[in-house]
Amino acid sequence: MFSGAQISLYPMTDDFAGVIMRSLGALDPYRDRLRIETDDISTLVVGPPAVLFPAMRDLFVAASASGKHCVLSAAISQGCPGEPDDPICQTPELGGPLSPLPERKQKALEAVGDTVLSGQTVAAQFSLYVMGTDHHMDEIYGCIDFLKNSGVFEKSKNFCTKLRGDASPVFATLHEAFCRFGPPAGHVTIDLTVSANSPSAV
Amino acid sequence: MFSGAQISLYPMTDDFAGVIMRSLGALDPYRDRLRIETDDISTLVVGPPAVLFPAMRDLFVAASASGKHCVLSAAISQGCPGEPDDPICQTPELGGPLSPLPERKQKALEAVGDTVLSGQTVAAQFSLYVMGTDHHMDEIYGCIDFLKNSGVFEKSKNFCTKLRGDASPVFATLHEAFCRFGPPAGHVTIDLTVSANSPSAV
Repeated sequence: MFSGAQISLYPMTDDFAGVIMRSLGALDPYRDRLRIETDDISTLVVGPPAVLFPAMRDLFVAASASGKHCVLSAAISQGCPGEPDDPICQTPELGGPLSPLPERKQKALEAVGDTVLSGQTVAAQFSLYVMGTDHHMDEIYGCIDFLKNSGVFEKSKNFCTKLRGDASPVFATLHEAFCRFGPPAGHVTIDLTVSANSPSAV
Repeated sequence: MFSGAQISLYPMTDDFAGVIMRSLGALDPYRDRLRIETDDISTLVVGPPAVLFPAMRDLFVAASASGKHCVLSAAISQGCPGEPDDPICQTPELGGPLSPLPERKQKALEAVGDTVLSGQTVAAQFSLYVMGTDHHMDEIYGCIDFLKNSGVFEKSKNFCTKLRGDASPVFATLHEAFCRFGPPAGHVTIDLTVSANSPSAV
């Protein structure tokens, strides 16, 4: 199943290009498992979620280490009917039969609890969209219940959910939300914003 | 039907807060028709699409007039089942019975053709998500066909469509894509990125 993201990194500084260029090395450990293409508006990263989410985390932590206010924005997608399959996306994570919601929520919480802290605090905001089913809100509500117990839940907002905490459990929570909810082999997307070093953070 | 957006503005400059503050006046003509709430990660703007899209356009054109590389990112939504209705969102634009796709494509093209140019060139990239129906790809493909004839279509990318042109027809095209496609009273969202003054623009 085809999966990946269109990712953009926005350092709020005159030296934005320098901050971006100096962060890209954080992607090196993942490059052989991702297909990466850049244009003037975003970078396409194609690969399985288990590679994609840690890669985004490390890229963002590297950029945030500049101390500048940085934002990562991403349109993350799997199972889009209009996309061709790609061998680099093969993974046992996706496409299996769905186990009951309570079991999936428990596994998601365990995965988040297993992370090693990065030392970088971030705020994140995302919308999870489940397409091609008449019952998408059941999965959304199940996911929201997991999020509220994730340890990085800040609040529900109109159209989205806000997280805050160390980058490691935040990105692990996003990964779990993306992979454990929604129909198997279904079309699921996340519209993601992650922010660090904001002068207006409370 | 509840509609609105979570909007963020990213000026890539040390003076990012100044650029944002000096742009906010562009929202003044719309403030009585919108509900606006800001936190450290985005600004919630609640109101009908016919007010929302011009307001985003004017805000972004004002920020881009700084000459700095600026990006606007927005999660735009209507008809989300989890949201309460709001009187400020009442509009005849949404919720009516769907006319045939060819007729809607023609009306969308006419609306884009009627815009007055802003003088600001932008690149935009967006994903349109239609939820709660088993036939969402028909509407997506109909929308893509309209986009290809909009005069601001640049290319299809994985997960999204890229536009380029004057801010006025670009935002008008986004507005039409949002309102004319998808089931009436359905849950439709757009994940939007708009960029200006990028040093890497081709």
